[in-house]
Amino acid sequence: MGPGPINAHPRVLRAMSAGLLGQYDPEFTAYMNETMALYRHVFKTTNRWTFLIDGSARAAIEAALVSLIEPGDPVVVVNFGRFGLLLREIAERCGAAVTMVDAEWGTVVEADAVRDAVRRVRPRVVATVHGDTSTTMAQPIHEIGRICVEHDALLYVDATATLSGMEVPVDAWRADIVTAGLQKCLAGPPGTAPITISERAAERIFSRRHVERGIAQGPGSPAGATGRRIASNYFDLAMLMEYWSERRLNHHTEATTMLYGARECARLVLEEGLEARIARHALVGRAMVAGLQAMGLRLFGDRAHKMANVVGVMIPDGIDGERVRTRMRTGFEIEIGTAFGPLAGRIWRIGTMGYNCRGHAALITLGALEAVLRSEGAEVRPGEAVQAAMQLLEAPAAR
Amino acid sequence: MGPGPINAHPRVLRAMSAGLLGQYDPEFTAYMNETMALYRHVFKTTNRWTFLIDGSARAAIEAALVSLIEPGDPVVVVNFGRFGLLLREIAERCGAAVTMVDAEWGTVVEADAVRDAVRRVRPRVVATVHGDTSTTMAQPIHEIGRICVEHDALLYVDATATLSGMEVPVDAWRADIVTAGLQKCLAGPPGTAPITISERAAERIFSRRHVERGIAQGPGSPAGATGRRIASNYFDLAMLMEYWSERRLNHHTEATTMLYGARECARLVLEEGLEARIARHALVGRAMVAGLQAMGLRLFGDRAHKMANVVGVMIPDGIDGERVRTRMRTGFEIEIGTAFGPLAGRIWRIGTMGYNCRGHAALITLGALEAVLRSEGAEVRPGEAVQAAMQLLEAPAAR
Repeated sequence: MGPGPINAHPRVLRAMSAGLLGQYDPEFTAYMNETMALYRHVFKTTNRWTFLIDGSARAAIEAALVSLIEPGDPVVVVNFGRFGLLLREIAERCGAAVTMVDAEWGTVVEADAVRDAVRRVRPRVVATVHGDTSTTMAQPIHEIGRICVEHDALLYVDATATLSGMEVPVDAWRADIVTAGLQKCLAGPPGTAPITISERAAERIFSRRHVERGIAQGPGSPAGATGRRIASNYFDLAMLMEYWSERRLNHHTEATTMLYGARECARLVLEEGLEARIARHALVGRAMVAGLQAMGLRLFGDRAHKMANVVGVMIPDGIDGERVRTRMRTGFEIEIGTAFGPLAGRIWRIGTMGYNCRGHAALITLGALEAVLRSEGAEVRPGEAVQAAMQLLEAPAAR
Repeated sequence: MGPGPINAHPRVLRAMSAGLLGQYDPEFTAYMNETMALYRHVFKTTNRWTFLIDGSARAAIEAALVSLIEPGDPVVVVNFGRFGLLLREIAERCGAAVTMVDAEWGTVVEADAVRDAVRRVRPRVVATVHGDTSTTMAQPIHEIGRICVEHDALLYVDATATLSGMEVPVDAWRADIVTAGLQKCLAGPPGTAPITISERAAERIFSRRHVERGIAQGPGSPAGATGRRIASNYFDLAMLMEYWSERRLNHHTEATTMLYGARECARLVLEEGLEARIARHALVGRAMVAGLQAMGLRLFGDRAHKMANVVGVMIPDGIDGERVRTRMRTGFEIEIGTAFGPLAGRIWRIGTMGYNCRGHAALITLGALEAVLRSEGAEVRPGEAVQAAMQLLEAPAAR
């Protein structure tokens, strides 16, 4: 019950035990195409270039930024937590001239501040996290999308922690690249990362296309590729798009088993229904919040912008947060999350994501946390947490 | 029966269906440590820094090169096939001044040519592939290791296609970084890649260490990190070593399921015995060669330096290589490999790797290939291939 990785759905794990296929076996390339089609629905996009980056969610972030950014490019980073700092870090490694628009941890960034920065620095790229699990905040994206269109900047959004758990309407946002990970609301294991790329971004990336020596039989650089070569081979989205296109130009070896898992994750989302799944995350997240408050615990951050699927809980005075986490794990086999940077030792982070976003999991976690906190001497109201959560879960229509 | 990815061992796939654990759960970090210990045996090394890079084999190559090479560094690339060209490509993207030492496809590079180049350019890094599946050649490494030690260059070796199928004695080679992949002789799926790093290379890499903002609570850059920051975050080996150390400094989210798979691959190697496994690859590879020759087919490349686990077969004149591959796949459910660049359309590549490196698989493949070739009108000696291979397989001592 941490902020991810969480328990994978059993059907995803079963799908991953299927036998391997060669990477150019027509059966396997059909699975690749099917996976692209499935994730277009999950991302609510018509983007042709919707596929997987083989690596953790961070791999997809780096693929997006290194393929868009050339050294010296101005980039605006919308920053309200640890993963905003990661965007800065990666953009800087790409050689970007980064301008930060910061919000205090526990709040989100005002659109006006983003607009001011974009007007001032005329960035090539605006990069933002959607839901930053480090602070449990979800940044509103629509207005930032409008600002980017108005000022001809490309918009990158990291939706690792929110895809299929909150609305991630890629086309409606007018986002150019959005990436995610399987290990949060998608209920899969980390190891491959969905990405979707607009035509505008693809055009930009293809202008930097270079073909690897030893692959194509023609000259190294196809016509039209005048841009600076992308600094990474593994994360070169131009090459990856050629690999995921009907040309199937060889790049890395697609992670067969992870693709089976990613495909099953998306199938489960669409079987449940994307809207129903988002509603489930909203409901169970509210039940968790209601329970924690009924217990008498204080929550962290701006409630108006809290992510649906994770909550930050202030560690009560005099309570050893790590001892509580250990007793939760050893006594109840339940993991809750620690925190990073300025919040380390101050909050726990409790997730209700994907396969763990189920009523009984929230109820059991609340009961266990209450028991451990009482045993540690914290002042909590006994028995109230589970009642409050049950009330919400059993009468969702009345909430 | 291609040059990889090949069929994974069923035990590996079963291991990958185990439930997920949180990345800091002591049970999971114990699996990480165990995986490190297992791969030290597989790599025949005492290197502390032996772990996994989450991505395909190419991800580990890039992690090694981007972490060792600073822009402007002279680098010597030993090149005898497509994957030598890949090393050049990646090194160039890292900003290296690359000097190539080339051999014609189907041969290997002479140590003297490497020595001359190293004396001339005084490289920071010498990079070579061990077994290049594009040409089926295996480069002798020992002498190159000596040259590197004499001239204070770091030696990188890509052993993706050979680890556990041929001798990869990392310490005896005096190699500084060696990387591999699971999808060849290790009999696992692609998606994570073993790496081992010498103390000398680790020292070099730690001199470029920078800690991510939002993680550590102290200043961004620990004492001693004076070198230029590594251009990639995802492939920053300094950060990865901190994550795989007892400090467990957060980086990416380790690909839980792929780690279970990698661990099971190594356990299978050590249960069989590394030497026994290498002998198995040698024997079955010889049986495949004997069968192909008995059929009357010509093999590609210098036999003295052929890899044990893959063979290049000249497509007979007048035969459509792709038609044969399709009929092998649709009629017999057997995949054999196509070829890259200058060898495209000229050879097939047939692997005997990992779980597919078993006598019956070689025999059935030979029988199927003979049948398809006869049906396509090729002149092959009927019935001889399987007999020749059986003879070797049934009396290995007499070979």
